[in-house]
Amino acid sequence: MAGFDAEGTAQSLERALGLVTPYVHRTPVMSSKQLDGLSGAQLFFKCENFQRGGSYKIRGATHALLRLKEQREIRAVVTHSSGNFAQALSLGAQSLGMEAHIVMPENAPRVKREAVAAYGGRIVLCKPTLEAREAEAARIGRETGAVFIHPSNDPMVLLGQGTACMELLAEVPDLDVVVAPVGGGGLLAGTSLATACFGYDCEPVGAEPMAVDDAYRSLQSGRIEQNERTDTVADGLRTVLGSHTFPVIRQHVRTIIRVEEDEIISAMRLVWERMKIVIEPSSAVAFAAVLKEPGRFRGKRTGILVSGGNVDLGDLPF
Amino acid sequence: MAGFDAEGTAQSLERALGLVTPYVHRTPVMSSKQLDGLSGAQLFFKCENFQRGGSYKIRGATHALLRLKEQREIRAVVTHSSGNFAQALSLGAQSLGMEAHIVMPENAPRVKREAVAAYGGRIVLCKPTLEAREAEAARIGRETGAVFIHPSNDPMVLLGQGTACMELLAEVPDLDVVVAPVGGGGLLAGTSLATACFGYDCEPVGAEPMAVDDAYRSLQSGRIEQNERTDTVADGLRTVLGSHTFPVIRQHVRTIIRVEEDEIISAMRLVWERMKIVIEPSSAVAFAAVLKEPGRFRGKRTGILVSGGNVDLGDLPF
Repeated sequence: MAGFDAEGTAQSLERALGLVTPYVHRTPVMSSKQLDGLSGAQLFFKCENFQRGGSYKIRGATHALLRLKEQREIRAVVTHSSGNFAQALSLGAQSLGMEAHIVMPENAPRVKREAVAAYGGRIVLCKPTLEAREAEAARIGRETGAVFIHPSNDPMVLLGQGTACMELLAEVPDLDVVVAPVGGGGLLAGTSLATACFGYDCEPVGAEPMAVDDAYRSLQSGRIEQNERTDTVADGLRTVLGSHTFPVIRQHVRTIIRVEEDEIISAMRLVWERMKIVIEPSSAVAFAAVLKEPGRFRGKRTGILVSGGNVDLGDLPF
Repeated sequence: MAGFDAEGTAQSLERALGLVTPYVHRTPVMSSKQLDGLSGAQLFFKCENFQRGGSYKIRGATHALLRLKEQREIRAVVTHSSGNFAQALSLGAQSLGMEAHIVMPENAPRVKREAVAAYGGRIVLCKPTLEAREAEAARIGRETGAVFIHPSNDPMVLLGQGTACMELLAEVPDLDVVVAPVGGGGLLAGTSLATACFGYDCEPVGAEPMAVDDAYRSLQSGRIEQNERTDTVADGLRTVLGSHTFPVIRQHVRTIIRVEEDEIISAMRLVWERMKIVIEPSSAVAFAAVLKEPGRFRGKRTGILVSGGNVDLGDLPF
């Protein structure tokens, strides 16, 4: 990761923030005395559930699109995702007058397909395997000239995701720790770069479902580990680290806290009930990690990246 | 209502706002391009779901307590409520070092009892009839000297509730219309006074479930009407207007829009899904009214009082 030396990274992040700012909401930072009392920490929730498209993913998508556009004329992009990045890339491309082809598994929920279509994304269905998704995306790239953008494992995507933590640190500069959920690792990698460049002795911590703890195991083994199961309620975190996200996380992140399914659901319910905001299970993983290891966070000024709020209200876990 | 002449009312409202401000959150005003598009109006949601105690009721409760305290030493207050006012009065009394006795029907949900207890309220259970509630509150007043405060039908309570709309108008001064749900009428009465004193040609509109449309019928008949049923999902709006709220509403409110149960649930779901905030059914009634009569609101700068966010997540209507 030659591109991520200290000074160069700070400049790259500043540039990313400048580029995406006209296209993203400056989301609020919320706090809750009740949840401070419950956790023993002083919590600052960066509410990317209020972001355009319902998650932080618009940051990385827009940054990647704008950087591509600087280099050459781009008319179309393609990705494979059934989740928040599909909506984000559709929305980002629409804002910039580009086409977005979205390869989705044919069993993707109707509500997600509708959201992508509403943002102008062109949906291509395929068999629900990683191989089929990659093959279909490659075919579309060949046939239409669309440029492939990976949902997480892309330097420009992860720099864009880091802008959420930059905004959080601009508002609450003296955070002791920032907790981000980890799936593909784009948010945690970007967050860890942001804390390294703009925090004052601020530690980035990852939070991961026990059922898909590839990032935890990858940090232990020193190589990218896979998951043997994907049965977590945190549907945004079923993916694994990649060649761009893993080295950054390995360099900057010492701690990944793993949480059980019931802990995720209970943390999600607490936030809905006490803070009156809708957050998705993947976001609840970060708060669940704080509740799970209170000793680590007691009295600390703790940022929590609320990654998104896209939930199927017809299929809630409580 | 001799107390509510134009100049005196503006002064009373200003005074109420000054008194309650140290004890309440200045809640945010949120907007949503998606919901603007759906409704055809320009919507400004005053988010009292983020208020202390989860609803606007802390405003009226605190104002009544502070005004009482100015007159004489008060050690205890009593009310009968199984809803948001019970929590609000408990919380307000706790902040001011007073005791709050809360008469609740013995079939009140456990979650509501726990919330009142958490805020330091002393719960007294009684049979689930209005007569039993009133008798029990009167007995507590006699035996303990606690002063009775009605959840809505009290001039000081309704002035306090008007401070939510004052804050909304301070932030968005050129609103054409403000929509408030109506149950006991405290919020709508206070809101209508605020629009009359501080709006620029701003119309207050009430929103009410069809199943408990006593306020609609009261405006038509010119006297306080009752409800023959209480089976609405909007549990905060089952009560009827009173001797203090009705005259104010009659003087200032021309329009009450009635909505069906499915319209309430659908509006609530839309707000949760698109705005990512948890609002209670009674709050959704106001947004449902805007969706029901789009012609009335098209192109108008429309304030919506989101009255609260206290919902039993284990018993959702969708």
